[in-house]
Amino acid sequence: MPSEKPHNKVILVLGSPGAGKTTLIEGIKSSGAHKLNIINIGTLMLEESEASGISRDKLRYLTTVKIRALREKAFKRIGKMSGTIVVDTHATVEKGNKFIFGLPINNLPDMGNIAGIIYVDATPGELMRRRSSDTMRKRENDDIEVLNLQREINLAVLTMYGTTYDIPVYILHNKEGELNKAMSDFGRFVEDIISNYSD
Amino acid sequence: MPSEKPHNKVILVLGSPGAGKTTLIEGIKSSGAHKLNIINIGTLMLEESEASGISRDKLRYLTTVKIRALREKAFKRIGKMSGTIVVDTHATVEKGNKFIFGLPINNLPDMGNIAGIIYVDATPGELMRRRSSDTMRKRENDDIEVLNLQREINLAVLTMYGTTYDIPVYILHNKEGELNKAMSDFGRFVEDIISNYSD
Amino acid sequence: MPSEKPHNKVILVLGSPGAGKTTLIEGIKSSGAHKLNIINIGTLMLEESEASGISRDKLRYLTTVKIRALREKAFKRIGKMSGTIVVDTHATVEKGNKFIFGLPINNLPDMGNIAGIIYVDATPGELMRRRSSDTMRKRENDDIEVLNLQREINLAVLTMYGTTYDIPVYILHNKEGELNKAMSDFGRFVEDIISNYSD
Repeated sequence: MPSEKPHNKVILVLGSPGAGKTTLIEGIKSSGAHKLNIINIGTLMLEESEASGISRDKLRYLTTVKIRALREKAFKRIGKMSGTIVVDTHATVEKGNKFIFGLPINNLPDMGNIAGIIYVDATPGELMRRRSSDTMRKRENDDIEVLNLQREINLAVLTMYGTTYDIPVYILHNKEGELNKAMSDFGRFVEDIISNYSD
Repeated sequence: MPSEKPHNKVILVLGSPGAGKTTLIEGIKSSGAHKLNIINIGTLMLEESEASGISRDKLRYLTTVKIRALREKAFKRIGKMSGTIVVDTHATVEKGNKFIFGLPINNLPDMGNIAGIIYVDATPGELMRRRSSDTMRKRENDDIEVLNLQREINLAVLTMYGTTYDIPVYILHNKEGELNKAMSDFGRFVEDIISNYSD
Repeated sequence: MPSEKPHNKVILVLGSPGAGKTTLIEGIKSSGAHKLNIINIGTLMLEESEASGISRDKLRYLTTVKIRALREKAFKRIGKMSGTIVVDTHATVEKGNKFIFGLPINNLPDMGNIAGIIYVDATPGELMRRRSSDTMRKRENDDIEVLNLQREINLAVLTMYGTTYDIPVYILHNKEGELNKAMSDFGRFVEDIISNYSD
């Protein structure tokens, strides 16, 4: 395992399920002259786990130890990529009031150079309305109290990342009915991260 | 000081005074085949300080340095225990808007293997009503603003533990008049922690 | 670079712009027999940057890397000072929903011995009313949502400091029309920090 410094710039995009991360990320394929490489941690972990025959629905039911191993592989794959990488993932995964942390602080450097964090924020009401029309996955525990808790915990998580690794944090409230503004803000934040970052 | 890896599983139970931690913990003596060893950090620190003639009421008035020394002894005693240990303690102690952190992040490993954290949550109203009938100790500063601050700080504390040591966090709202549900949730969380943890 | 242990006691005073930090700090020049050395990180960074012809207004528009270098110099100057030092600074600087962390966790020890943290708190309404009469600097993004976000992030930041370095945190709500009480609380907190701290 040679410990060469990675040459990538990683932009972490975090937010609760239903906040609209994926929509915003899919709307942006490049920033100025910079082609963006979009990576979904869940998908990467799914690829890593496919050999063992574990389906996506079951991913969140795995034991902590199994999730840890898959995650480490996913992070290290990102660390080997070059260019500007937009990482779509969760600060926390919640199920039945149990919160698991998606990106433990000591594993972040495995991904390479984190240049900025964009948190896609939404109110509990917005999250619940978006989730109810989401037929892709079963959603649980969507009550307002838990959504507020998750938001508070997520904000503490990204504060930890920011103050530990001196990473700027951008908070984008993806308001209902204002997708165009959100997309424009998202593009601006990505551009700001790229132009301010230097190795 | 030999640095053998401890063989215990520690479950941290945190919450503001009046949240109901102790009631929930006392209601659970075992989980499946696992006998639980219940430890109260305050009691442990009291035992450590007894020799010096310091009473429990005075514990929270000690200087930071003295508290640190007592705490370190208590944590290391837990680290030498085996089996599944449920630790009853505070994320923060508040007195007159001064917050002291009960479990500094670098001292946590002294206790051994932290397998999970259960936070017993309550609203300011619930805390104040429970505290007013608590004749065991004098309570101060019970106004809503401070209780909300302490809750926010506590949530940030356990987020730090979770994301630093990759520990799952369970949040249990101990609602007024729903003690049976709270006890059942508590039992389920303990079981989940034990069954998911592997060294 | 000899690594002598610094002999200072540092009191960090944090708060959003408009919370009233500077007013409180200017009202206190000594605590009992202790003369206080008041330091403003922004002023120190300005002094460090003056040679390069960068004005104060432009400081917050510098790239992350330039800010980092100025900050490191400022922190290390504090680390070489002796006596009791009251440091006036920001947990976060916010501009257009971008949050930069003023005091990355790993840089704190550069300042010496942090004996205590005082957070000057204010509601979004109080902040907005105080800022609108502040003609010194242009203020942006003063809406309630962002001010609440910044407060939450600030509380998580100081929780990190407290639980990482075992520093007590004091929260002082600087309420409108109650400046005398705030100044008295501030003096009491400074005194408590000095009397409890031992190297």
